[in-house]
Amino acid sequence: MSARDLFLGIDLGGSKILAGVVTGAGKILSRAKTATPFSGGGDALLNALRETASSALREAGISPARLTAIGMGSPGPLDPARGLILRTPNIAVKKLAVGPWLSREFRAPLVLDNDVHMAVYGEWIAGAARGKARVVGLWIGTGVGGCVLWDGKVVHGVNRNAGEIGHMILDARRVRPGKPRGTLEWEASKTGIARHVRKAVRRGKKSKLARHVKGDGERLHSSDLAEAFAAKDGPAVAAVENSAWYVGLAIANLFDVLAPELFVLGGGVSSALETSYLALVRASALEHAFSTELGRPRIVLSRLGDDAGLLGAVFASRDTPRAARPAPRARTSPRRPV
Amino acid sequence: MSARDLFLGIDLGGSKILAGVVTGAGKILSRAKTATPFSGGGDALLNALRETASSALREAGISPARLTAIGMGSPGPLDPARGLILRTPNIAVKKLAVGPWLSREFRAPLVLDNDVHMAVYGEWIAGAARGKARVVGLWIGTGVGGCVLWDGKVVHGVNRNAGEIGHMILDARRVRPGKPRGTLEWEASKTGIARHVRKAVRRGKKSKLARHVKGDGERLHSSDLAEAFAAKDGPAVAAVENSAWYVGLAIANLFDVLAPELFVLGGGVSSALETSYLALVRASALEHAFSTELGRPRIVLSRLGDDAGLLGAVFASRDTPRAARPAPRARTSPRRPV
Repeated sequence: MSARDLFLGIDLGGSKILAGVVTGAGKILSRAKTATPFSGGGDALLNALRETASSALREAGISPARLTAIGMGSPGPLDPARGLILRTPNIAVKKLAVGPWLSREFRAPLVLDNDVHMAVYGEWIAGAARGKARVVGLWIGTGVGGCVLWDGKVVHGVNRNAGEIGHMILDARRVRPGKPRGTLEWEASKTGIARHVRKAVRRGKKSKLARHVKGDGERLHSSDLAEAFAAKDGPAVAAVENSAWYVGLAIANLFDVLAPELFVLGGGVSSALETSYLALVRASALEHAFSTELGRPRIVLSRLGDDAGLLGAVFASRDTPRAARPAPRARTSPRRPV
Repeated sequence: MSARDLFLGIDLGGSKILAGVVTGAGKILSRAKTATPFSGGGDALLNALRETASSALREAGISPARLTAIGMGSPGPLDPARGLILRTPNIAVKKLAVGPWLSREFRAPLVLDNDVHMAVYGEWIAGAARGKARVVGLWIGTGVGGCVLWDGKVVHGVNRNAGEIGHMILDARRVRPGKPRGTLEWEASKTGIARHVRKAVRRGKKSKLARHVKGDGERLHSSDLAEAFAAKDGPAVAAVENSAWYVGLAIANLFDVLAPELFVLGGGVSSALETSYLALVRASALEHAFSTELGRPRIVLSRLGDDAGLLGAVFASRDTPRAARPAPRARTSPRRPV
């Protein structure tokens, strides 16, 4: 890598697409952001990704030809080697070849991995997990994602999609096949928080968030949630406490199994609520961990915040050996993306 | 290690103590077995351990002076470096310096680790997990233990007691601080199975196991359980199905997080019920795992059976560098253990 190498980072999230041009040293030269299109399927998503990436390039004033590589994080399950989104619970696409397509559009090799894998890798290179060999990240946003980083490497596992901590079943007796009920994500995600607030409002409780959780298109933003929590809004406080309680419980489970050096919390909910959320998670983790005589769970907040996924994707594309990166296939049309 | 090196293996379980003299190549020269003393505290336990080990030495016809090292597995939590049992849910001891004591008694260095860590290490060296780099073991016996073996090394973690899969919380809403309710062990262990059968009997159901689960000293043996299960004894079948369902669910959780190459099932319940238990566990794991497009959980039975813990302890003491083994401290009395 030369100091002049430039990378395009893309962070596809359940709420928004973030793209940026970033130096190999992690300096962000430009940022662009759009809302994730939930309906419209693959075409709408690919167009939104291209537009966001093109904006980032335009803003940085560089042409795609300057790009050394592209790193992209996406919700899973994925086929990282082939650059496919297999399916995602939060965006309506199936077996979408997003990697090869973007790689062709911008004529640069692309590394695709789970969005939270990218974010935790970013925290490991340049954030809260620097210098730690064994780290577990939990990202509490629209959904709940996770990543196990073991001896400095992201654990992908035999299914290439390890780290799906959000799908950890914590309420076995509430599980029904194929349904998200009973999982960590069901209780702890922003979607789960909104559901709890909505239920409370329907039971007649008053909440500042009532209009954000109606489910008629109005969406709950993490910043609104944080505001309501700070104002001691009853349903908001209860739902956040419930979310943090479950996250702490999942951390206790993972601590009992793996006892990593560090847990990192990130994602919209955690970033907006910050230390108040962290304190609740810590209390629950310490209450539920079994074996703490010789070491206790250590839990910290993400330091890179909203940029974790973007930076991690860039670092991953930077650190992936050139031979392992899928080569961009020949373009079939002379169209330029920007 | 020379071919003439002999090792003493000790497997302290929730039901029985197993000791044996074993060659460095894993050939078992003698075996001795006694029931684990549940009450009587540390002294009773140490005496029982000494007697069992002495029997094994006598039967093999060798003196302690011939021992290269001792390997011992014990339920946790432990302080492996100092050879302490910190506490165990199933045996009434606290901060018991079992390692230094046995090491003095038999004048040989002793390596102490969790009983299931030892068993899974045994399976990795000479059993069902040979040649696999990333393995998770679940041992379903009196309690439920576990072990993560990652890149060929047992994961001990920052608390030195990782692998406590039995304490994974799977019914969050049933958990009360400090109580075992809501954990995998609560549902899946032989103790949990006995509780379920007992409840069914109290509700008026007929079961061949009724007298084994009264809780008045009569104990449920895995062989009786297997017999009742084979005879389609209603309460036995339901309790075993429940146990396997929870084990499969825990495996699904661990698969979603780590996606290891292999899961190994061992312990009394699994060994007695064999393939019928395995089939139930597999069905539940496949039903609950989230991301199986590119790889599915692979689950097999222990191959070393009852000897896994003993052999694993011997292999661990054999493979621990001499410098890392605690040296036996000088004896304060000339008493001989055998």
